[in-house]
Amino acid sequence: MAARTKFVLDEDQIPTQWYNVIADLPEPPPPPLHPGTLQPVGPDDLAPLFPQALIGQEVTTERYVDIPGEVLDVYRLWRPSPLYRARRLERALGTPARIYYKYEGVSPVGSHKPNTAVPQAYYNAAEGVGRLTTETGAGQWGSALAFACATFGLECEVWQVRASYDQKPYRKIMMETFGATVHPSPSDVTASGRAVLAEHPDSTGSLGIAISEAVEAAAPDPNARYALGSVLNHVLMHQTVIGEEALKQFELAEDVPDVIVGCTGGGSNFGGLVFPFLREKMAGRMSPVIRAVEPAACPSLTRGRYAYDFGDTAGLTPLLKMHTLGHDFIPDPIHAGGLRYHGMSPLMSHIYELGLVDAMAVGQQDCFAAGVRFARTEGIIPAPEPTHALAACVQEALRCKETGEEKAILTALCGHAHLDLPAYAAYLTGDMVDNELSDTTLEASLAGVPAGVS
Amino acid sequence: MAARTKFVLDEDQIPTQWYNVIADLPEPPPPPLHPGTLQPVGPDDLAPLFPQALIGQEVTTERYVDIPGEVLDVYRLWRPSPLYRARRLERALGTPARIYYKYEGVSPVGSHKPNTAVPQAYYNAAEGVGRLTTETGAGQWGSALAFACATFGLECEVWQVRASYDQKPYRKIMMETFGATVHPSPSDVTASGRAVLAEHPDSTGSLGIAISEAVEAAAPDPNARYALGSVLNHVLMHQTVIGEEALKQFELAEDVPDVIVGCTGGGSNFGGLVFPFLREKMAGRMSPVIRAVEPAACPSLTRGRYAYDFGDTAGLTPLLKMHTLGHDFIPDPIHAGGLRYHGMSPLMSHIYELGLVDAMAVGQQDCFAAGVRFARTEGIIPAPEPTHALAACVQEALRCKETGEEKAILTALCGHAHLDLPAYAAYLTGDMVDNELSDTTLEASLAGVPAGVS
Repeated sequence: MAARTKFVLDEDQIPTQWYNVIADLPEPPPPPLHPGTLQPVGPDDLAPLFPQALIGQEVTTERYVDIPGEVLDVYRLWRPSPLYRARRLERALGTPARIYYKYEGVSPVGSHKPNTAVPQAYYNAAEGVGRLTTETGAGQWGSALAFACATFGLECEVWQVRASYDQKPYRKIMMETFGATVHPSPSDVTASGRAVLAEHPDSTGSLGIAISEAVEAAAPDPNARYALGSVLNHVLMHQTVIGEEALKQFELAEDVPDVIVGCTGGGSNFGGLVFPFLREKMAGRMSPVIRAVEPAACPSLTRGRYAYDFGDTAGLTPLLKMHTLGHDFIPDPIHAGGLRYHGMSPLMSHIYELGLVDAMAVGQQDCFAAGVRFARTEGIIPAPEPTHALAACVQEALRCKETGEEKAILTALCGHAHLDLPAYAAYLTGDMVDNELSDTTLEASLAGVPAGVS
Repeated sequence: MAARTKFVLDEDQIPTQWYNVIADLPEPPPPPLHPGTLQPVGPDDLAPLFPQALIGQEVTTERYVDIPGEVLDVYRLWRPSPLYRARRLERALGTPARIYYKYEGVSPVGSHKPNTAVPQAYYNAAEGVGRLTTETGAGQWGSALAFACATFGLECEVWQVRASYDQKPYRKIMMETFGATVHPSPSDVTASGRAVLAEHPDSTGSLGIAISEAVEAAAPDPNARYALGSVLNHVLMHQTVIGEEALKQFELAEDVPDVIVGCTGGGSNFGGLVFPFLREKMAGRMSPVIRAVEPAACPSLTRGRYAYDFGDTAGLTPLLKMHTLGHDFIPDPIHAGGLRYHGMSPLMSHIYELGLVDAMAVGQQDCFAAGVRFARTEGIIPAPEPTHALAACVQEALRCKETGEEKAILTALCGHAHLDLPAYAAYLTGDMVDNELSDTTLEASLAGVPAGVS
């Protein structure tokens, strides 16, 4: 037979445990702090928002956590996801590098987000919760939670950033098809939404406002909880099914990655792919370079400050030690909505500080150039977010072409662009700019990071 | 392990031959006729439009045709497609039936269309053709051909029905991302387009007009050919990879289908799934009921006339013996754009006349009810076209619930709805009607079928 294009696992090879990288780190990440007392937050502080099982997973030091059978049953709808060898892209680039991509766009909503939405909905349902609230910006997380809630019979209520609600009607329809209720944010159904609307009746919203609304709608209702799609430890842990499968698929390919690249917004897609490889690296069984790729318009790792800051704009969340651009930072409206977050997951930030991964920032024109090249060779039109990883992958592959190095490059392709195609239209018609973050803007937004907490 | 959810084949199990059902039929389908001479059309008549290899496949009586290695290499990007057991849907329906679906939405453009777009582009490229033209209504075929042309370095020019061009901008962007040029039809770049615009400057177009434009743009140019996405024998034959894989997957499942349902527009998705099963049925190795499901708004098999008629509205094509609603029939704008065609593939029509398959028509509200139920259990939001098959599948499963019969039902799920979500919004908000074809309208359009040809 011809050279293999994809490495497929049977459904009995879906991982049965999530991997908790914290167990293998030389030191644990700094804890979240209560903004009033500046003491680490405890389970009681989080109980109005999250079910006990997830609070336990957030702080566990166990190396592995069993995946419940009910969650595995849903994972089976699309997992294991395929690992591809990008032979057509390699040929087009004329590179001696071997390029692999782990493709999460096969999930029902077209991204990696259901890997954590499903267990989050499951644990809530198991503890008798009847309703989940959340926010969504690009719409991928909201779609995933809507699907997961349909699966376990939970009500789902989503606050979608107004600009996204208006510009991405397909995302809203997808959520409603799964049975969710979708509000534009700011909305008139919460006090925080009404407060914003009173001052700015035409507000197009922000992720920060939407978080406030979703939290406000859940906290006082004993039947409701809140769900978050990235940033937190348990979310990144749920995503490790990606990397565990990829490890098995590299065995099938009889290969070992030399470089792993993934895009980072909150950090969950990247962490999900790389943590199992990081385990192997820390154990000395392989030595890949692991590289986070972020937008030049929102470069939290490469240009942010490592400090305690709020997770939301309104300052309602605990203080998180992370790479931050300042919690009132408003990123330019680049098309990779899933990467427009002012902070980086505390766990990923910590790992970066430990020197275990490196990072780079790219402008969105290079990203879409890589996305179009990928589409015309591999057939899949990548979501705006993973075009960042592809841009870095193409760079690395072209470097190999110059040096003659036959490196194996692994790329996280976390979703397709079917619901984000207008971004490609903007690129193809030349209406796209890079929106690199200016020093002045960065300085101004960093001024909002709380002082005197370290 | 738990009961299996999907049956996955490795890429070395992609079929290496297409199956030509004509070889096994008791008699061949009646040939297309030249509208002037009323004699069967010969290869020379077709040479300006199609490459020799495809003309040969259109008339071959060989049982199997080898799939070129270059085509298999591209099929590997998404094939073999999965066969699913719809356990969650079965539970929701409370049926003793076993429901399976063969899912073609894993292709780069989200439907079964690339199965034939890829070989069509390949054979044209192999014969030195530099440019392909085509029409597209719903946009699925145009997207598939754009992808296939990118793969083999061909220029691709698509005439997209104006109404679809305006309402489905995402489809156009997808085609352009693959490098195609897309014209709204009627356009001012062809004589037939200009003629329509002169009389109706605001024309929203029709598939018939778009076919005329694409044919006109290809026929006089020795560097160009035309491509069709359904109806013809070679197109249906290319789609048999679907059924051949499904047969192997049923072996894995250790099961045999009792009922097979698929939706029919031009007939290629249905034919592709059922022909290999029909071979097994004609050979006495299994005995499934095989059922075509069509929209009540466009019921060519169940209410059309079996007669020689034109394939396009303008009457430029050969006369085809088929179930037709009349070549100037304008179907109501139901959301399943892929099923809005006045005729049925001559091959499928012939097989229906032989009594080898049966047919039914369903209204689109029942279809979308089945689509939403499917999305909320199985996770995949089905394209409007295969909701017709799902409606029939749900009917059959509920019949089994009444009778206690434990039938195995196989459904063709030919694509997802990511680019057709507004149809779901129309259903969810109650703005959807069935648009059943009236007797008066049918009678009027049948009056246009050429008389005296049989």
